Amino acid sequence: MNTLGRFFKVSVFGESHGVGLGAVIDGCPAGLPLCDDDFVADLARRKSGAKGTTPRIESDKPEILSGVFNGFTTGTPISIIFRNENTRSGDYSNLVDQPRPSHADFTGRIKYNGYNDYRGGGHFSARLTVAVVAAGVVAKKLLSQFGIEVVSNILEVGGNTNIEETVNKAVEAHDSVGALVDCKVTGLPVGLGEPFWDSAESLISHAAFAIPAVKGIEFGCGFAAANMTGSAHNDVLVDAEGHTATNNAGGINGGITNGNDLYFRIAVKPTASISLEQQTYNFKTKQVETLQVRGRHDACVALRVPPILEATTAMVLADLMLLQKGREVMQFTL
Amino acid sequence: MNTLGRFFKVSVFGESHGVGLGAVIDGCPAGLPLCDDDFVADLARRKSGAKGTTPRIESDKPEILSGVFNGFTTGTPISIIFRNENTRSGDYSNLVDQPRPSHADFTGRIKYNGYNDYRGGGHFSARLTVAVVAAGVVAKKLLSQFGIEVVSNILEVGGNTNIEETVNKAVEAHDSVGALVDCKVTGLPVGLGEPFWDSAESLISHAAFAIPAVKGIEFGCGFAAANMTGSAHNDVLVDAEGHTATNNAGGINGGITNGNDLYFRIAVKPTASISLEQQTYNFKTKQVETLQVRGRHDACVALRVPPILEATTAMVLADLMLLQKGREVMQFTL
Amino acid sequence: MNTLGRFFKVSVFGESHGVGLGAVIDGCPAGLPLCDDDFVADLARRKSGAKGTTPRIESDKPEILSGVFNGFTTGTPISIIFRNENTRSGDYSNLVDQPRPSHADFTGRIKYNGYNDYRGGGHFSARLTVAVVAAGVVAKKLLSQFGIEVVSNILEVGGNTNIEETVNKAVEAHDSVGALVDCKVTGLPVGLGEPFWDSAESLISHAAFAIPAVKGIEFGCGFAAANMTGSAHNDVLVDAEGHTATNNAGGINGGITNGNDLYFRIAVKPTASISLEQQTYNFKTKQVETLQVRGRHDACVALRVPPILEATTAMVLADLMLLQKGREVMQFTL
Amino acid sequence: MNTLGRFFKVSVFGESHGVGLGAVIDGCPAGLPLCDDDFVADLARRKSGAKGTTPRIESDKPEILSGVFNGFTTGTPISIIFRNENTRSGDYSNLVDQPRPSHADFTGRIKYNGYNDYRGGGHFSARLTVAVVAAGVVAKKLLSQFGIEVVSNILEVGGNTNIEETVNKAVEAHDSVGALVDCKVTGLPVGLGEPFWDSAESLISHAAFAIPAVKGIEFGCGFAAANMTGSAHNDVLVDAEGHTATNNAGGINGGITNGNDLYFRIAVKPTASISLEQQTYNFKTKQVETLQVRGRHDACVALRVPPILEATTAMVLADLMLLQKGREVMQFTL
Repeated sequence: MNTLGRFFKVSVFGESHGVGLGAVIDGCPAGLPLCDDDFVADLARRKSGAKGTTPRIESDKPEILSGVFNGFTTGTPISIIFRNENTRSGDYSNLVDQPRPSHADFTGRIKYNGYNDYRGGGHFSARLTVAVVAAGVVAKKLLSQFGIEVVSNILEVGGNTNIEETVNKAVEAHDSVGALVDCKVTGLPVGLGEPFWDSAESLISHAAFAIPAVKGIEFGCGFAAANMTGSAHNDVLVDAEGHTATNNAGGINGGITNGNDLYFRIAVKPTASISLEQQTYNFKTKQVETLQVRGRHDACVALRVPPILEATTAMVLADLMLLQKGREVMQFTL
Repeated sequence: MNTLGRFFKVSVFGESHGVGLGAVIDGCPAGLPLCDDDFVADLARRKSGAKGTTPRIESDKPEILSGVFNGFTTGTPISIIFRNENTRSGDYSNLVDQPRPSHADFTGRIKYNGYNDYRGGGHFSARLTVAVVAAGVVAKKLLSQFGIEVVSNILEVGGNTNIEETVNKAVEAHDSVGALVDCKVTGLPVGLGEPFWDSAESLISHAAFAIPAVKGIEFGCGFAAANMTGSAHNDVLVDAEGHTATNNAGGINGGITNGNDLYFRIAVKPTASISLEQQTYNFKTKQVETLQVRGRHDACVALRVPPILEATTAMVLADLMLLQKGREVMQFTL
Repeated sequence: MNTLGRFFKVSVFGESHGVGLGAVIDGCPAGLPLCDDDFVADLARRKSGAKGTTPRIESDKPEILSGVFNGFTTGTPISIIFRNENTRSGDYSNLVDQPRPSHADFTGRIKYNGYNDYRGGGHFSARLTVAVVAAGVVAKKLLSQFGIEVVSNILEVGGNTNIEETVNKAVEAHDSVGALVDCKVTGLPVGLGEPFWDSAESLISHAAFAIPAVKGIEFGCGFAAANMTGSAHNDVLVDAEGHTATNNAGGINGGITNGNDLYFRIAVKPTASISLEQQTYNFKTKQVETLQVRGRHDACVALRVPPILEATTAMVLADLMLLQKGREVMQFTL
Repeated sequence: MNTLGRFFKVSVFGESHGVGLGAVIDGCPAGLPLCDDDFVADLARRKSGAKGTTPRIESDKPEILSGVFNGFTTGTPISIIFRNENTRSGDYSNLVDQPRPSHADFTGRIKYNGYNDYRGGGHFSARLTVAVVAAGVVAKKLLSQFGIEVVSNILEVGGNTNIEETVNKAVEAHDSVGALVDCKVTGLPVGLGEPFWDSAESLISHAAFAIPAVKGIEFGCGFAAANMTGSAHNDVLVDAEGHTATNNAGGINGGITNGNDLYFRIAVKPTASISLEQQTYNFKTKQVETLQVRGRHDACVALRVPPILEATTAMVLADLMLLQKGREVMQFTL
């Protein structure tokens, strides 16, 4: 549902064209320094504004309602809200009867029996990720106190490393394009991850697939491992801290972090909303017809994914750190 | 931790060379016909016995301790245990100081401060999957009452579709080899999956990555989508039931099942335990030394994965069906 | 932690003298009619304003940020916030070193290592119950669609049924006074409650003890049952619907609702904050000293409890109804 | 459902007259010494055998299937099973159509649509508490490592402190009788309990009401507080460790343990199953008729409650300790 985590719990709420959206972070230890400025950089990275991203501009100014006092977290829930400002809901009126292909228009409508807020995708909109990024800022700040760093980058767009050019081509074609994004975590201790069901891969992938448009994930050498022999794939252990000569495992053995860098990649599909004419079923006329999607969209939604992926990954790791170390040990002294 | 699911909850316990292992299934509606024979086929598929699978032969006879009465589920927890019989624990004595490369020997040792049952991988052993398969039998039987079917197959071993030959080569080389396994679910209603965090992909991948040796997962056209344009990737909606002309999405839009077949693939890495000599750190001598792994292992553990992947997937879907339909609606009448 | 429920989940956040507080309700089925006016009556009951309640007057105007569209719930999280307006934080400055007896000042300080927002009790303040009441409005409205009604009343204050007189006496004495409050639920189906750990009593008491100042709960004839024989206590079953001649069980057998009215009582202790001089430890002087509590408080906090107790009880029952009936069955048709 | 706890999770399963029952304990830190003998004392206390307890004698010999290796917990799930031996299922055949008054016969039948194992109350039987006691042994042993002790005693039976005589009278009258049982916890740190929903009282009462026949709970002076003034009820704080001159709060302020003894009492109703003739509805004849309950029952089931109440309380506190201290800090060194 809308809450992730057991110890560091993040609940998100909101719709694209409603009053606002936000996150509640429950379980963050007391005494972590936190202020409005901490959110600026990652919210800006998500907002982008670069060519290939939506022309809808939102100020994305967080308002902290609770959980911070005198510049430090209190130990009780941190709630952060964002108001929607730049909405043009009229743009979406034609999608009620004609769902966009490969979008949540149809599934949301059926799941919620027609009561869903369909404007701009409603709760399914990528706009919700502004709340995810905000929660991620807190998670990353918590992890940084223990020397853990989470960094995500775009590797390829449309199969090319020449990212800007490929995005431009998609924009010009009124089309969209997919991408490959990676994530690396440094500074992790050995031992994070929980058998049987909560392997490090299980938890990280669970969170990553909540990001709209993610359709694949692989750890270490991932799918390439399916083609390899054990003698080629195994990573030789070279010291008592668990360091290995290679890192085909992506830093995880038996579902547990092994002291090496944690590394994985995700596949982001092309944005479903494109300006090119498409065919789709019309519920009113009961036949397949041409749809012209209006509204403002990303030609390459993946351009905005890195801070979001860092956020989901950091939440999972903050949760696992709290389980191992305990809230008390992670508390800060005045 | 060791429990998966919220409504159809599966807890697993046990170690490879301990007294036994098992599963507790909590939340299965009352009135589902269930008997010992129901478990035979899938447990046999998992056991394999084919070339390339471990020569350790276990009877894998389930004992149902609770939750079944007069041939039907009672609605209270179903507990199923299996006793370990064919254990040769002496085989593992040298691994205490010399952890096998890319195995959980090292991570398990550190995580549990040296108290883990290291024999045969203990709780990290693929032997635990016998309990998973047993729970999956119940989940699949529940789903079948609603016309939902889950089927998994091996697509490739070591990059080749000539599976038997590739496995034989690995056996002869005293090596192991990875594989690509798929899973298809038919008969699903529209609407399964929960925003924001519990997308259908999130839940299925969470469960799949609990299977030992899984290192990647992709839904629909998956990683290929990273290279595609939206106009090529979008699936045209052709009727009011949600059917689409293509199925690049793998049956999921916005994290919600869309009425088409759900389809995904996983990458299974080569078994870490190989008989070939390998290098690894020795905690006693404090240097990297040659390790000769004894014991009985799978040259291609993926050969046994299909019933396990069906099981984890069926558990997730049973959970989602219960959330939508309610325990009462899923109850069966005498 | 700060979330209650599995299917109808209520998260609360906020502090007494911070920016604001609120609730996020996740899992409410789509299509329930909901508007601002629905909150007026219960928020007014909680606010009271009667003699014996705090002179701090707040407008308690809810702002719905998400989850409601065109007058109906959308099926996605409903978030409701309240801003604090009438705060006089200076009133609490002396409590940092001198914790109020029987209040959370001391436990909150130690638990959160001194980082807690101590003003007005912070997150421990009864002010948080405004968010609980708001969530309860939604839960009660959901239950009412199925003919279930939850009603709470004050039975006694300070051991007397002459409630107003007893409260007045406490006000005049600059003291506070405890009370006995009951709750009755009508229209429940047979079968709510989950063995082994989630009996109807377990879930209702769990939620009730979250209300500040509650120190006891008893179902049916409760503590009197400890003095009775089975022949006197047993309720004779008189028809196939489960009706009983007496209701000593309070409508619950074996932890499961039995089709009769559910009935229980709670003991509310006197408000800890009183204007009378008291002794307490001073952390600065390191000795026990006289404390004069300033600020504005309830002489009988129990006067405001009925809508809060209805809210916590309704949340629990909404959760159990969803488990039995499923989200889909509880969905409303356009 | 059948699992309690988030960090120290206890799942129970089984029926009174089925093959067996048991518990799975997930989350216990590695390195806790544990052997079969540890279970003897508490299982014997629960078994009783004293006058007033059931003549059904079971060996109650625990079999540990997993989670213990070389005399220490491994950190992975501890599973313990008990086989039912002394069952006389024929005794219960008449209860299918004529549910015992105030028992779960009726509610269980309706909830599970007639598929429940009705023999001896099935999953609702007090026999399940043998698994609870076993799990409690582990929880108490864990707490004892930190100097925390949980002790429960019977205070009164049928309103009298002359316990044996009152029980004897009930036995002779072929009737049953209720009782008052207390529980005291010493050695607790300040700070256990989680706002908003998981107050120490919330969690302890949740677990206590899972014990069959419990109908009331009160902390500190409990229901008496409803009759008191604040000046009489407040506990004066006397030192920096949180000690108070009186303990009317029962060791909990604002839902958080305050460093004093935690103290509460529960009301146990008289056993529903009595040999005296009673009236109840007959589903076959569709009228109220006389019922003669056969089978073997406790005249005062409360006599066996103390080790069970210690167990449920210890589980809750173990859970809270793990949250504060973290699994790693609670780990033991070889």
